[in-house]
Amino acid sequence: MSHLHESKDSLIARVHRIAGQVAAVERELNGDASCATVLHRVAAVRGAVNGLMDEIIAEHLEAHVSRPGLTDAERAEGAEELLAVIRRYSK
Amino acid sequence: MSHLHESKDSLIARVHRIAGQVAAVERELNGDASCATVLHRVAAVRGAVNGLMDEIIAEHLEAHVSRPGLTDAERAEGAEELLAVIRRYSK
Amino acid sequence: MSHLHESKDSLIARVHRIAGQVAAVERELNGDASCATVLHRVAAVRGAVNGLMDEIIAEHLEAHVSRPGLTDAERAEGAEELLAVIRRYSK
Amino acid sequence: MSHLHESKDSLIARVHRIAGQVAAVERELNGDASCATVLHRVAAVRGAVNGLMDEIIAEHLEAHVSRPGLTDAERAEGAEELLAVIRRYSK
Repeated sequence: MSHLHESKDSLIARVHRIAGQVAAVERELNGDASCATVLHRVAAVRGAVNGLMDEIIAEHLEAHVSRPGLTDAERAEGAEELLAVIRRYSK
Repeated sequence: MSHLHESKDSLIARVHRIAGQVAAVERELNGDASCATVLHRVAAVRGAVNGLMDEIIAEHLEAHVSRPGLTDAERAEGAEELLAVIRRYSK
Repeated sequence: MSHLHESKDSLIARVHRIAGQVAAVERELNGDASCATVLHRVAAVRGAVNGLMDEIIAEHLEAHVSRPGLTDAERAEGAEELLAVIRRYSK
Repeated sequence: MSHLHESKDSLIARVHRIAGQVAAVERELNGDASCATVLHRVAAVRGAVNGLMDEIIAEHLEAHVSRPGLTDAERAEGAEELLAVIRRYSK
């Protein structure tokens, strides 16, 4: 994603944390963790994925819709892309 | 919401359908509907509320962020308002 | 839902609060509330609907799956009904 | 999770697919994928995590609540653990 600058490292750090949590789920499934422990872990992964999604939406909104200097057509396209994701996954 | 035009009737129609479904939940709780029936009904309400939210987000995005003629400051404010809602309720 | 006892009033009270919030959404759409105000209201409705769903799931789990005295077949059926709802609406 | 039998491999396979998708998000953030592409990928991760959670809930429900031969106290405890997760993360 070429428009990312200072925020790219923070997004990558989020993805790394998620990867670590997913690896922990696998270890717990293979080990003797309780069902409840694994459930809470998977719920934490979901929360982290939601947080990542929010931040990428924020990036998109700034870079492709609200940023000064974009053309009207670029803003309209950026808004449409964002709504397509929100509508498809909002259930 | 003053910027609503042709879409206002459709948003109001969505809200009316949701109100009807909520009334149906109450009837089912008072009557002898099965638990599973009520669960599916409440899940349908949630889906309808999510759909309403998506449409209001779409309205907001168009009216306050992407619309031609807004100032940079207006777009920035509109984007911030949208992100505040998304971040607060994305769990 | 015939197995509801002391909790029925509390479920009905939740449904009434949701109905009141839905009516507020309609008033705000018709009035001059800001987009952001309506978004937060609709998000609050969604939270209240999720809370209602959790409580009905709790009722179902107790009445049809975990309650002492049920037959194995009744528990299996109650569990299947619950999973059907969870799988269908977990997106 | 000691009670997993034939389903363990399928849960592990789900976790592996999620890990692969998370790695793809990182590649896309580092590469020149469009914002919209990354958003759809992250949304797909969320869907996969929700699917994993549903399956672990199904395992828990069977192993700790509905399974023939459990004591009443074991069923009550299994139901409480499940509700704790659902209530905490249903927003």
